[in-house]
Formats: sequence, C-alpha cells, structure tokens
Amino acid sequence: MAEESGKKWVLMVTAQTPTNIAVIKYWGKRDEKLILPINDSISVTLDPSHLCTTTSVAVSPDFTHDRMWLNGKEISLSGGRYQNCLRELRARASEVEDEEKGIKITKKDWEKLHVHVASYNNFPTAAGLASSAAGFACLVFSLAKLMNVKEDQSKLSAIARQGSGSACRSLYGGFVKWIMGKEEDGSDSVAVQLADENHWDDLVIIIAVVSSRQKETSSTSGMLETVETSMLIQHRAKEVVPKRIIQMEEAIKNRDFPSFARLSCADSNQFHAVCLDTSPPIFYMNDTSHRIISCVEKWNRFEGTPQVAYTFDAGPNAVLISHNRKTAALLLQRLLFHFPPNSDTDLNSYVIGDKTILQDAGIQNMKDVEALAPPPEIKDNIPTQKYKGDVSYFICTKPGRGPVLLTDECQALLDPKTGLPK
Amino acid sequence: MAEESGKKWVLMVTAQTPTNIAVIKYWGKRDEKLILPINDSISVTLDPSHLCTTTSVAVSPDFTHDRMWLNGKEISLSGGRYQNCLRELRARASEVEDEEKGIKITKKDWEKLHVHVASYNNFPTAAGLASSAAGFACLVFSLAKLMNVKEDQSKLSAIARQGSGSACRSLYGGFVKWIMGKEEDGSDSVAVQLADENHWDDLVIIIAVVSSRQKETSSTSGMLETVETSMLIQHRAKEVVPKRIIQMEEAIKNRDFPSFARLSCADSNQFHAVCLDTSPPIFYMNDTSHRIISCVEKWNRFEGTPQVAYTFDAGPNAVLISHNRKTAALLLQRLLFHFPPNSDTDLNSYVIGDKTILQDAGIQNMKDVEALAPPPEIKDNIPTQKYKGDVSYFICTKPGRGPVLLTDECQALLDPKTGLPK
Repeated sequence: MAEESGKKWVLMVTAQTPTNIAVIKYWGKRDEKLILPINDSISVTLDPSHLCTTTSVAVSPDFTHDRMWLNGKEISLSGGRYQNCLRELRARASEVEDEEKGIKITKKDWEKLHVHVASYNNFPTAAGLASSAAGFACLVFSLAKLMNVKEDQSKLSAIARQGSGSACRSLYGGFVKWIMGKEEDGSDSVAVQLADENHWDDLVIIIAVVSSRQKETSSTSGMLETVETSMLIQHRAKEVVPKRIIQMEEAIKNRDFPSFARLSCADSNQFHAVCLDTSPPIFYMNDTSHRIISCVEKWNRFEGTPQVAYTFDAGPNAVLISHNRKTAALLLQRLLFHFPPNSDTDLNSYVIGDKTILQDAGIQNMKDVEALAPPPEIKDNIPTQKYKGDVSYFICTKPGRGPVLLTDECQALLDPKTGLPK
Repeated sequence: MAEESGKKWVLMVTAQTPTNIAVIKYWGKRDEKLILPINDSISVTLDPSHLCTTTSVAVSPDFTHDRMWLNGKEISLSGGRYQNCLRELRARASEVEDEEKGIKITKKDWEKLHVHVASYNNFPTAAGLASSAAGFACLVFSLAKLMNVKEDQSKLSAIARQGSGSACRSLYGGFVKWIMGKEEDGSDSVAVQLADENHWDDLVIIIAVVSSRQKETSSTSGMLETVETSMLIQHRAKEVVPKRIIQMEEAIKNRDFPSFARLSCADSNQFHAVCLDTSPPIFYMNDTSHRIISCVEKWNRFEGTPQVAYTFDAGPNAVLISHNRKTAALLLQRLLFHFPPNSDTDLNSYVIGDKTILQDAGIQNMKDVEALAPPPEIKDNIPTQKYKGDVSYFICTKPGRGPVLLTDECQALLDPKTGLPK
C-alpha cells in the first residue's frame, strides 16, 4: 500500500446472500457474547431472487473510519455484533494484490484500513423475515472476499454467527444444519450443508406476511428470558431437539415430506410453547397465525397425509412449505379464500415472488379470488369465515442457493470511485 | 316403601354448588374412564352468589326412569359420566325415613327407584366458566343428601371426579387441592380443603368473559391429545408441577400474594404452552387474552411487585385475582380503559357481580369510562390502543364457600308434588 500512497483507489466486492427459515428452531444461548446455542438447528435457505440481502464492501486508504449504510440510511457500526465480525475478519485478512489497478494491500495494512459497507434487503426489513440473518451473512461473506480471508465457508459461518446466530446458516444454500458445538470459544459452533437446493427441488414455499398491531419482543431478549425463566426449555434443548435433529436429517436425506412436515410443525409449535412458558410470556403468533395453522391442519388431516408444513419465527408471519407445485397452488387457493386482500389492494402486489404459482392456481384477477369455492375439508354446516386484510401479502418462493459474488458492477451499492453509496 | 305403595309421594333435596378456577392446572389423565389426573392441582372456589349451579334432585315411586333438566331443557342421562356418578351413589345409599310424610326408603329400594334432576347455572353455560365442574359437584352433593350417603366430603369428591375431573374441587369452599392419588381404582384421587374462604378474604376476582369467534377444543379431547402427542407434558407433570404444588400450598398458607401470583401466572402459561405443544396444536387464548396478560404484566412490572394474578382455563376468558379491593378497583379501571363496552352496551350489564368494585373505581356511568386516563405504566410515546367490544362482560367476585343445602322450598327447581320442573 505504501508504494501506492498518494494515488487514489477503491477496492470493492459485492455479494448477495439468502435468508433462511429454521425448521428445527434455534431458541436459547449458552453464551450471549459468542452467540452459542443450547441446541442444534436446521434450516431451509430461501431463494435469493425473492428474499436476499445485497452488500457491497469497499476499502480505500482515503476512508477515515468504518461506515455502513442499510437500505440507503447510514447506521452505526459501533455495536458489539458488528465489531465482533469486523475484528474476526481483520485478524484473518491476507495480502491482496490487484495488478491492473496497481493496488497491493499487505496483511498488516488491514489493521489500519477502513471499510465502507452498503447493504440492501429486497424485502421490508421490519416484516420479520430474518433480515439480520441474511445481513450478517452477507457482511461476513463479502468482507471475507474483499480481505482475501482464506478460511472455508464453515469457518466463516462461525464469524457470521457472532453477528446474528441464525446468520451462520445463510452461508449455504439448500438445507443447512447449525451444529451447536462443545468448545467454550465457539470454534466448533458452525453451519454445515446437509444437502444443496437441487437435492429436493419440488418444494414450494409460500410466506404469509401477517399484519400485526403489536411490537414484538426481539429474539435476542426473548430467548434470554426464556432460558432464564422457562421450566421447559432445558428439557426441549436436551431431550427433544437432539432426537428431532436426527429425524429431520433423515427426512431431508430421503425427501420424506410427511416426516419433514410433521417435524417442522411440531418444532415450530414447541418453540412458541416455550415462549409462552417464559415469564413474562412471549406471544409471537396472533389470531391470524392461529387461523393459518388451523387451515393447514384441517387440510392435512382431510387428505390423510401432510400436504403443507408450517413454521413461524419470532413474529406472526407464516412460512408454508408445500410438497410440490400442485399442492402449492391448492394452498394458495385456500389462503386467498380465507384471507382475501383488502378491496384497495391489487392482486399483483398481494401475491409476489414466483407468480407462476398464482397461474397454476388459476387465479388471474380479483374476480377469480372472489369466485374461489370453500375447500372440501370445510364442513358444510360451519359458516366459513373470511379474514379480509389480516394478511399483508404473500411471497411465493422456494429453497435456494447460498451466497454468490456479483461481478456486474452495476449491481454494486457503492460508487467504485468514491466508495460512497450510489 | 312397600307399605306406602299406592300413596303418592316425592322426596326432594335442593343444593347450591360453586364453580372453581385452578391456579395450578389439571391437564392430562392417566385413566380416561375413572378420570385420574397425571398431576395434583389447586383451585380457588368462586363465590356462588355470582357463579354457581343450583340443583334439585327428587325421588318418587312414580318416576319411571332417571331424568334430568339443565337450565329448563331436558338432557340425556345416558352418558357414561352421569351413569358413573349415579351408580356410585346408589351403591352407597342408605335408609331414609321421613316420618312426617310417612316415607320409608330402604337401602335396597334405591336400586329400583328413579330420580329426577333439575339443574340451573346462574351464568351462561357456554361462556367457558367451568359449568361442568359446578354441575357434577352439585349433582353428586344433592343426590348424596337425598340418598343419605354417609361418606365424607372427600369420598364424595371422588365420585364427582368421575363426572368431571375438576368437579371434585367444587365440593369445598376456599382453597382446594385435588390429590392425584396412586391407586388404580382412583379411591385416593380426592379433593381436600387447604383453607376455607375466610382464610384469605381480601382477594378480589374479576373475570373477563372474552368474545370468541372460534369453536374451542373440548378439554376432554384436548388433554387426551396433549398426553398422546406433547413432548413436554410429562416433564411438566412429573418435574414442574410437584414443586409448584408445594410452593402454592405455602403461598396460600402464608397469604403470600407475590408468590401466589407468580405461580398462578406461570402455571396458566405453562398449561397453554403444553396445549400449543400438542399435535395438532390447541389454542385457547386469543389476541384479547394476550392483551389482558400484557396489561397485567406491564402493571405488575411497573409496581415492582404483583398487584394481580391471571389464569386462563380451556378458553379465552381471563380470571384475574387481585390482592385486595384497592388493586381490584385499579384493575377494573385499566380493564375498562383498554376494553370499553360496545356503544350499545349498558355499563350495568357490562360489569356484573359485586358492583361495589365499580363504585370503588369511581365509575358510575359510561362517561366515567370514557374519561379514564391511560394508566401510568403506559409509556407516553406509545399511542394507547383501545379494544372496544373485545370483552363481552366482566364479573366481579371473590373466593367463596363450598356446597350448601337450600331449605327454602321456593328455591327448588322441581315441583314438590309432581317432581317435574316448576
């Protein structure tokens, strides 16, 4: 770097990282600072076309301090979680040479160089769709590339974990397990890929973003309170989850949808059960969440075998995993029947993501929604209730790939000359 | 009886029995037929002035079969639970002699004589206020008097238990424990009184009857499904509840309200947690229930020590136990602030039971309700939300006495001449 002093340069990397949804839940830490969990967890990575974070990271001798912009707005990097990630990555940075640009950064230079980070979610941050998981995974993945960190993906996952626990699972596509590990320093608390996204590619995922009037307990403080006060959480972590992890790995390996669905639903419900067993109790699901569960349970029972799995994170949104495109179309019909949009909402903005599912469901406009017949599992003697406006919108998506580098400079979020947001 | 044949007579007994609310919950049977629970439970008996069942039972040689009327409508007695109670009582019946009326019934006569039963709840049966507990307790208590059953109250509780588990706890006033027992025949699964209603007479109870759009899972099938599918229920029954029973007995003995409140709330939440951990999950509480809990939790935290305990049975209704009249008045202000009645509802029918609490709260009419200021624990920066119409009505009551005989014939529900409903 010394030899280049005086000459202006900015080195930049842009990456895209998916979000993920746990099907065996992470809830409860054994180490708050290192973010070490009390049990293993398993997740499905979601298709980044519909839900992802894009992050550009840049370095330049002209940068005077580390800065970050999230969705265009500057935010502070002084929080412990950002600092942990930056420190761990700087400690592993290697020499970088760009002959074309005439840049050379030694391992030692990284100690003094500052970075700029710009991050953008292609979905509403506040919608409770695991934005911090994708965000920290993308931060770590892109900085590791920029800094020429030579650790493998699993080691990187242990760094992302220190930003946000579930972020470690976003470093892989497909089906991912976060191994809780045993070491005190957290070095073996890493994510591993169980199977890539092509292993089981007929699954279709519909996310119901549920309107909520309540401010939710953050998952950080929620899980701390659960560990401190629930009389059931240790039994869950020690006795229940280990068995479910084995069964879930087996179900994924064999593409055994009934087992996958049974385990996903049971584990989601148990996670919310231990939240309720917390003092004061934590409620993430609301009446709309309950109604979505009832709708799925009724249908699954009617068919005699699970058509759809449901899982809910720390909020009221439902993540519904369908066996295949056909069941996804049937599910979407049911969802639109029970939860039609408000009259001022356009169907095109009510069902987003992979709109071909809407076509498969034979729904082209609001008239088709209004014409939907009650599903056969609803008994004729019960008047069917509709809950207009209780769902904000639906996202149709599927399991997806892990992080990728974006080489097309027009996708970068920072100006390649100034290193400031475009 | 033989000597009196030809002469018409009807012998009648009328009794009044309270309902009760569990503060350490009964959920799960180890024997479905005998109704033997998987853990002890503790309840507070509610004042029969506001919530009770009145039952008249009559016997006459002219009755051709056992008949029963509930709230004026004839219902079948053929169900196993009624049959169990009738069989157990007949087996223990003794000689009855009424010299004045010239009636003599031998022990053997009871095998052939038929009874008429008329029962009336002074509260809506469908409101989810433990009507079956008061109902079976009253049936057993009144028939035992009529049939001159010489067993003590505890033995009677074991008979009432076979009608409806929680009915056994309604045979005593005040604070009652249902001992799960060990015997296979259920003979030691009985209720005992921990303290009578005068022991801790400053407690005030406000019940919020919550409007519900859902049909709830019956507690009978709900607890069966929990025992069959929940991975947490056995841990609760074996590890958690036994400790809480000891602590709750101690709290009641010492009138230790903070411990009483902490245990009641935690156990209610854990009961609903194991319901949620059931497959398919059972939801008894709805958004209104959650909001009532949040309101109480916020206030309790603000004061630094519990002012009010909450507990919810198999439905969305909240039972709120206040430390004393003063906290009850403050609670009622908060409840009416957050949950005002619909505009077409009269305050007089919105707050029922002991209306002196309403006076203590300084509320005489709807204008006073509208003028209520937000409670101080609500932060100024959060806009306060009101949930008009989400509560059907409030019942103000207190811990109360056990079953009593009503000797005033005008309170009888059967005609003393015909033995048919008045």
